[in-house]
Amino acid sequence: MLQASFRRKKPRSPIPAANFCPLPRNPSVKQTDLINRRILLASRPQGLPAPENFRIETRPLPALAEGEVLLRTLYLSLDPYMRNVMNEDGPVYAPSISLGEVMIGGTVCRVTESRHPAFQAGDLVLANSGWQDYAVSNGEGLMPLGATDRPSLALGALGMPAFTAYVGLLDIGQPQAGDTVVVAAATGAVGSIVGQIARIKGARVIGIAGGAEKCRHAVENLGLDACLDHRNPLFAENLAASCPQGIDVYFESVGGAVFDAVLPLLNVGARVPVIGVIAHYNDTDTRLPGPDRRPELMTAILQKRLLMQGLIILDHYERRFDAFRQDMETWLAAGLVIPTEDIAEGLEQAPAAFIGMLRGSNLGKLVVRVSD
Amino acid sequence: MLQASFRRKKPRSPIPAANFCPLPRNPSVKQTDLINRRILLASRPQGLPAPENFRIETRPLPALAEGEVLLRTLYLSLDPYMRNVMNEDGPVYAPSISLGEVMIGGTVCRVTESRHPAFQAGDLVLANSGWQDYAVSNGEGLMPLGATDRPSLALGALGMPAFTAYVGLLDIGQPQAGDTVVVAAATGAVGSIVGQIARIKGARVIGIAGGAEKCRHAVENLGLDACLDHRNPLFAENLAASCPQGIDVYFESVGGAVFDAVLPLLNVGARVPVIGVIAHYNDTDTRLPGPDRRPELMTAILQKRLLMQGLIILDHYERRFDAFRQDMETWLAAGLVIPTEDIAEGLEQAPAAFIGMLRGSNLGKLVVRVSD
Repeated sequence: MLQASFRRKKPRSPIPAANFCPLPRNPSVKQTDLINRRILLASRPQGLPAPENFRIETRPLPALAEGEVLLRTLYLSLDPYMRNVMNEDGPVYAPSISLGEVMIGGTVCRVTESRHPAFQAGDLVLANSGWQDYAVSNGEGLMPLGATDRPSLALGALGMPAFTAYVGLLDIGQPQAGDTVVVAAATGAVGSIVGQIARIKGARVIGIAGGAEKCRHAVENLGLDACLDHRNPLFAENLAASCPQGIDVYFESVGGAVFDAVLPLLNVGARVPVIGVIAHYNDTDTRLPGPDRRPELMTAILQKRLLMQGLIILDHYERRFDAFRQDMETWLAAGLVIPTEDIAEGLEQAPAAFIGMLRGSNLGKLVVRVSD
Repeated sequence: MLQASFRRKKPRSPIPAANFCPLPRNPSVKQTDLINRRILLASRPQGLPAPENFRIETRPLPALAEGEVLLRTLYLSLDPYMRNVMNEDGPVYAPSISLGEVMIGGTVCRVTESRHPAFQAGDLVLANSGWQDYAVSNGEGLMPLGATDRPSLALGALGMPAFTAYVGLLDIGQPQAGDTVVVAAATGAVGSIVGQIARIKGARVIGIAGGAEKCRHAVENLGLDACLDHRNPLFAENLAASCPQGIDVYFESVGGAVFDAVLPLLNVGARVPVIGVIAHYNDTDTRLPGPDRRPELMTAILQKRLLMQGLIILDHYERRFDAFRQDMETWLAAGLVIPTEDIAEGLEQAPAAFIGMLRGSNLGKLVVRVSD
């Protein structure tokens, strides 16, 4: 069903092509059956990561011990949280990566060899094997995917980003029919799902995105009622004009100037799930020049009885993943949710694609196709 | 039961005596049976209110129409929210007072004359008749108090401040046995009740207050595990030392530097009911010099999955007041909650007592005894 999904392949991104080749394009470092390419954290970024913060190295494939499986990466997920674990002081919810360690990341893998009773060669699994061609696993944390004609969805519309959208919107945001829901990063991996679920729940949905192409996509393909370009100098005025009844739910993943425009429009009793503050991930100091906007926020929380709550999706798998999975499969099958994927080709493109995502150049869920 | 309650009468306050006489001490403006003294908003304060922002005037008592009652004020409640309604742009939850209007406020009144079928002369009622000796009411919003030997509690431990403590702590804060609960303004009208309810729920309770006298009161009389003086230069270090397990619930009514010290100590999943930001009520601009602390707060909300929620108690009477009343009467009777009242004598003292409260000079619920 062609209309029911969108894939964009690099390099349709506005990022200059030079940025897409941080690593030598050497045929010897293509994925093979014998060599494991691994992308390591070479140095800690100051602000926006640069290609030189990453290093690729090759290793021979390891031999398996009893009880282990060898995984070959098909798809690697690239997500904003990875920026935080690159810092020396990692976020509270995950340890930071040491220098010289493989970058972490969710993956869809094929079991190529198994000495584990629960897995057979050929099995497709969801794993956390990181930015590399191959990994050895003792089976812990592997989730069998069964038969699927689009395994990459396990990293997006059926995986962590969409699950984040689901729990954040439904459990914290609690949109009611007729509510105005505003979603930041509306064409991103999480935001694109938030908007579509909010529409299913009968809300009026206003997206916020960077640039005309994204905004058009949000309205034409994702079915949002409107989408506003935060790069437009009249953004705040446009947002106010698009929300004549104020805002009942603001799905926050951005922070910064976007939140400045949203805050005065929040209604009494509005809910603000916070699943990211990507505008601040590259801040080298979280205490920034004035004005100090915290008193204004605290006053708004009080006077408007706002509910703000942070969400790290790892907390919720046990309690909510089954419900999510069931609902999302129904919505996908009915065409009520349309997944958007932005696919970078080849493991060696991961650093540039990741940097581009932090700059906002992706459209939908960003994945790297590591092998077919 | 003398030990089971604390009353402090003005002028035990550290506020200079001169501040307590903003209005002419003229015997002709004492409460009488013939004259209504009214305290009006004379001008809008810039920052902390000053005595000249208020004006007293006298009026003859009005005649009653059919269906009306005449109320004589016994006690007037003074509360921080009144600062906000003095601004031209009032808070969202209440209209601002016009210049020349009587200051608003909750009161305990005696019905002195009634042409209303539901009320008789001599009835005691909870009213919202403001800063004046007498008021005429059509009965709307009056709550009969029945027989009570301490009617002022209807403004404190059995009224709005304690109800705020109850809903904020139990419904938003949700303390569990063993949790560390930190309460700002721990000896104030709301905070003193929060701490005692949190103790009842089995939490370890750390108070924050201004000055040694208040801190001693919080520990010795209110039963808190510790109380820290926020004026101490080592306040942040002391708070950290008193919360070795971090903070699970922070009951916020202050903002500013107190919140600065609390934020790094909040645990993953901590709850932060926000019932006031008194540190900012006198800000002439809510956008203050840097550093900008909002990104730091947003990052903490995300990474620690904080829940912050504002509370305006007016929203909750219908749903929760009966449960509060029942629980609180039980706790008061059992001596588990001990009310603290700070009583200013005479309507003419209301402005100075109010200003003193905004500076933190009250201990417990501040009420004005207008007549016996």
